Amino acid sequence: MNKTTLSKGEQTKLQIIQAAAKLIYQQGFNHTGMAQVLKTAGVSKGSFYFHFKDKDELGHAVVDHYRQQFKQSLPLHLQHPTLGSLDKISAFHHFYYQQFENANFAFGCPIGNLTQELTDLCPVFAAKLNTSLNSMSLAFAEVIKQGQKTGEINPDIDTEQTANFIVESWEGAILRMKALNNGDSLNRWHKFTRQLLT
Amino acid sequence: MNKTTLSKGEQTKLQIIQAAAKLIYQQGFNHTGMAQVLKTAGVSKGSFYFHFKDKDELGHAVVDHYRQQFKQSLPLHLQHPTLGSLDKISAFHHFYYQQFENANFAFGCPIGNLTQELTDLCPVFAAKLNTSLNSMSLAFAEVIKQGQKTGEINPDIDTEQTANFIVESWEGAILRMKALNNGDSLNRWHKFTRQLLT
Repeated sequence: MNKTTLSKGEQTKLQIIQAAAKLIYQQGFNHTGMAQVLKTAGVSKGSFYFHFKDKDELGHAVVDHYRQQFKQSLPLHLQHPTLGSLDKISAFHHFYYQQFENANFAFGCPIGNLTQELTDLCPVFAAKLNTSLNSMSLAFAEVIKQGQKTGEINPDIDTEQTANFIVESWEGAILRMKALNNGDSLNRWHKFTRQLLT
Repeated sequence: MNKTTLSKGEQTKLQIIQAAAKLIYQQGFNHTGMAQVLKTAGVSKGSFYFHFKDKDELGHAVVDHYRQQFKQSLPLHLQHPTLGSLDKISAFHHFYYQQFENANFAFGCPIGNLTQELTDLCPVFAAKLNTSLNSMSLAFAEVIKQGQKTGEINPDIDTEQTANFIVESWEGAILRMKALNNGDSLNRWHKFTRQLLT
């Protein structure tokens, strides 16, 4: 979204979402206080409540924001216009490896973090986070299907099951990355994923 | 630990840890208030501060408690006295599947949850949680090594790397389980893990 095309009110709303997205990503939802969000966004309490009913509603908007970020990055990896299937997966690995490395392998996956923290506490969060994980699985399933057509990927594997396992093991790899503050688990994921597919 | 062999003070300490372990498991660390822990444990504030400096120190004891629980369950699955390697892994899957099913596939892995929530916020937590994840990897590596000796498991696979990937994909499977409230991802993990090993 281009800030210049937004009204002043929409700009303020986006400022709040972006500030909250960053803080929640780094600290978790429950650990992030409203006062901190307002201070970081540089907006008043009144302005916040004009746009959001409460902290939960802001949280839902933040999950949508994360999903949007993932969707926008797809042409750089899983929906790259020219790469073959295995190279698309390598590009996905490379893209996120670099992002995580730039953050010293901390913080992890914004969707995975909130899934751990919030799915048991709130069904609206659970549904939104599920949608995000499912869209990731669908993107991998599409890559696998293409590779099965071109002969790059084993035609006998179950596309949907494998795509889901790939997403789940990716989330687990990120969890271990956070614990160890290095990228070994991400590289391991890449190696074993290729092995499963070929 | 048998309660009857504990002094009154030790019993109180254990009561606090057990109450906190349950609440933190269900709600997360940051979402669990001290007042709730004291109420659930049925102990006074004074009694709490006799045993723990602060909430963080209680949290560290809770991580140790979770690791202890995992260790105590090992003879039922990964360190089963008579089962072969693949059956040990099936027993592991079955043991936790049942536990999760009894809780309607909510809450997830206590160690995974805290890794997501706390490793970036506190190095003492990070070190303790790493130790727990590593001990899980070591238990799987031992099972793989045994299976490679008996011929049940492919002798060409890298024991340590595979054990780590198994643990990481297990944590990811639990994350998806929480999101979807069913055991599909756990069954998927079991299927793909066997495939990787044989």
